[in-house]
Amino acid sequence: MKFNNRNVFISDSAIIGKNVKIGDNCSILDNVEIGDNTIISNDCVLGEPLLEYYSNKEYSNPITKIGSGAFIRSHSIIYAGCTFGKNLSTGHRVTIREYTEMGNNCRIGTISDIQGYSKFGSHCWLHSNVHIGQKSTIGNFVFIYPYVVFTNDPTPPSNTCIGPTVGDYTQIAVFSVLLPGVKIGEHCLIGAGSVVGKNIDDYQLAIGSPAKVVKDVREIKSRDTGESHYPWPYRFDRGMPWEGIGYSNWVNV
Amino acid sequence: MKFNNRNVFISDSAIIGKNVKIGDNCSILDNVEIGDNTIISNDCVLGEPLLEYYSNKEYSNPITKIGSGAFIRSHSIIYAGCTFGKNLSTGHRVTIREYTEMGNNCRIGTISDIQGYSKFGSHCWLHSNVHIGQKSTIGNFVFIYPYVVFTNDPTPPSNTCIGPTVGDYTQIAVFSVLLPGVKIGEHCLIGAGSVVGKNIDDYQLAIGSPAKVVKDVREIKSRDTGESHYPWPYRFDRGMPWEGIGYSNWVNV
Amino acid sequence: MKFNNRNVFISDSAIIGKNVKIGDNCSILDNVEIGDNTIISNDCVLGEPLLEYYSNKEYSNPITKIGSGAFIRSHSIIYAGCTFGKNLSTGHRVTIREYTEMGNNCRIGTISDIQGYSKFGSHCWLHSNVHIGQKSTIGNFVFIYPYVVFTNDPTPPSNTCIGPTVGDYTQIAVFSVLLPGVKIGEHCLIGAGSVVGKNIDDYQLAIGSPAKVVKDVREIKSRDTGESHYPWPYRFDRGMPWEGIGYSNWVNV
Repeated sequence: MKFNNRNVFISDSAIIGKNVKIGDNCSILDNVEIGDNTIISNDCVLGEPLLEYYSNKEYSNPITKIGSGAFIRSHSIIYAGCTFGKNLSTGHRVTIREYTEMGNNCRIGTISDIQGYSKFGSHCWLHSNVHIGQKSTIGNFVFIYPYVVFTNDPTPPSNTCIGPTVGDYTQIAVFSVLLPGVKIGEHCLIGAGSVVGKNIDDYQLAIGSPAKVVKDVREIKSRDTGESHYPWPYRFDRGMPWEGIGYSNWVNV
Repeated sequence: MKFNNRNVFISDSAIIGKNVKIGDNCSILDNVEIGDNTIISNDCVLGEPLLEYYSNKEYSNPITKIGSGAFIRSHSIIYAGCTFGKNLSTGHRVTIREYTEMGNNCRIGTISDIQGYSKFGSHCWLHSNVHIGQKSTIGNFVFIYPYVVFTNDPTPPSNTCIGPTVGDYTQIAVFSVLLPGVKIGEHCLIGAGSVVGKNIDDYQLAIGSPAKVVKDVREIKSRDTGESHYPWPYRFDRGMPWEGIGYSNWVNV
Repeated sequence: MKFNNRNVFISDSAIIGKNVKIGDNCSILDNVEIGDNTIISNDCVLGEPLLEYYSNKEYSNPITKIGSGAFIRSHSIIYAGCTFGKNLSTGHRVTIREYTEMGNNCRIGTISDIQGYSKFGSHCWLHSNVHIGQKSTIGNFVFIYPYVVFTNDPTPPSNTCIGPTVGDYTQIAVFSVLLPGVKIGEHCLIGAGSVVGKNIDDYQLAIGSPAKVVKDVREIKSRDTGESHYPWPYRFDRGMPWEGIGYSNWVNV
């Protein structure tokens, strides 16, 4: 139904793994390497060249690596120079600029816009319409909800570019802004609609504009169980490496 | 100018009504049913399969129903299992996930992202870049302005999913967030940039983060006439079923 | 690598300048005029017809003018009736509705959504995901950061449409909303997450929801130099007409 080999372009220098499906109207450009068992849905561009391509006749496209088991939904654009571990999953119309690095098992939601020159750990889940400015650093198991923006210029416009840093297991709720250079610890929860301008220690719930720490996340109860919900890895395992075995067992192995 | 039958794919199992225009580069996939007098502009995908399609060889695409008189602008993606009444209108690059149900005369703006498993009444107008999380319930004549987000997980991440509910005639202004499970009554107005965490009674203006009720909407004056603007159906009829006859006459018939 | 003349449609009435590259899967529709040395990347639609096209057999597409030296990134849609000066640059998936006018050297970021019937000066930089409602008026050297929304209906829904006005050199930070009809002066800075409902005088820093003036921008220091950063043209010249010669010299010529 979806893979009819209609209007597909694959560069001679692309390296395509085994059992890879490539959707209609896709362009796989120079020096793209795609791992085994990957699905590229329709209308995607992989290996989009950098700006220099349009002016420099000597231009050579940097290598783009997409690990095995990826599922890239339709209309996504991934620039040259990006590297993804195994099992990348994207929504539709994702734009990922050059030199973005991601570990394994990352997910990026529909219309999200990663501006490049940023580094993510493994198991990060970015929901729809997330905007990550350049020079951002994100740990492992970080979940970022819709319409969150990471910024990097403290006095716009300027040539200063200092992205935010986010620690492992932290959750950033919808419509939050991380101001330039802010550092958020591990296991934090940033509430909906926050503007975070000051560093946040581990395990803190911060909320508001400007965001203020209101309590320790370990005091937050689950609506379902009435018990502490955080640190969430003890309560949630869907898609996580500790699925079915429990976080305690996984972390102790 | 626009309909040149260039690079179009239509599944054998799709049912296409009379006088339907299908734009270049479109894919109309299995079990899609399109009503008469519909325009599908270029680069659309209708009947996008569910995730199961990629792993289950026995997969059969659920029926997708698009009522007569629809106008679907370019680059839109509608998943299988959705049902729309008559006269659906979409902007460009709309993404509508599976099992979204809409009544008649609904409009969905450019880049909006409906996550599926949600139900809308008739005459709902969603402007650009609206995000509707799963399990949302929206009444009739509900207008949702740009960059509004409906959420559904009270303690992220968790497996709890309780979407918001919005009553008939309610207006939700730009950059508002509806927190999980919140219920907003009929004829309400939610001001720009609100984070709504508590239920709102009928006819209330609520605003702020967290949103608080500030007055009855019937006290709000029109800038043009100086008279009460709400309930708005008495003052606005463009595209409404009471256009030209007045809301009083229409509602009493 | 990118320009293979694959699946391209160019109307007979389009006027294409010298040394223009047109990407795969593009549609250049009736009465589009493209200046010399322009790059149109893949999957773009230029001269998208107005709604009337679908119902009026006598419809003639208004002229769309794209000045020389433009770089339009992939998947962008520009409606008929728009006019751009020289050196337009767009991100991916930009949507620009009819009768948008822009001067020279404007930039529009990925997924931005210009609703049309608006006027921009020269050297405006709109970052990703900016939404400009109809009837907006923007000066020269105005920078608008991601997820900013310009609105125009004071009592939604109504037939009143009064867009905001923004003066030269003003900076509007992420997640700000300009309410209908608001006027912002020259050299202002609107802080992140602001809801601007009242007019702002020249040189003011305004922030908050509702936005309040907190100080004169000339009191804001650069994190790098410790000196006043604003008015920014004295401190920033990348891509500006005073690049390399200094704003003082340029403005005095």
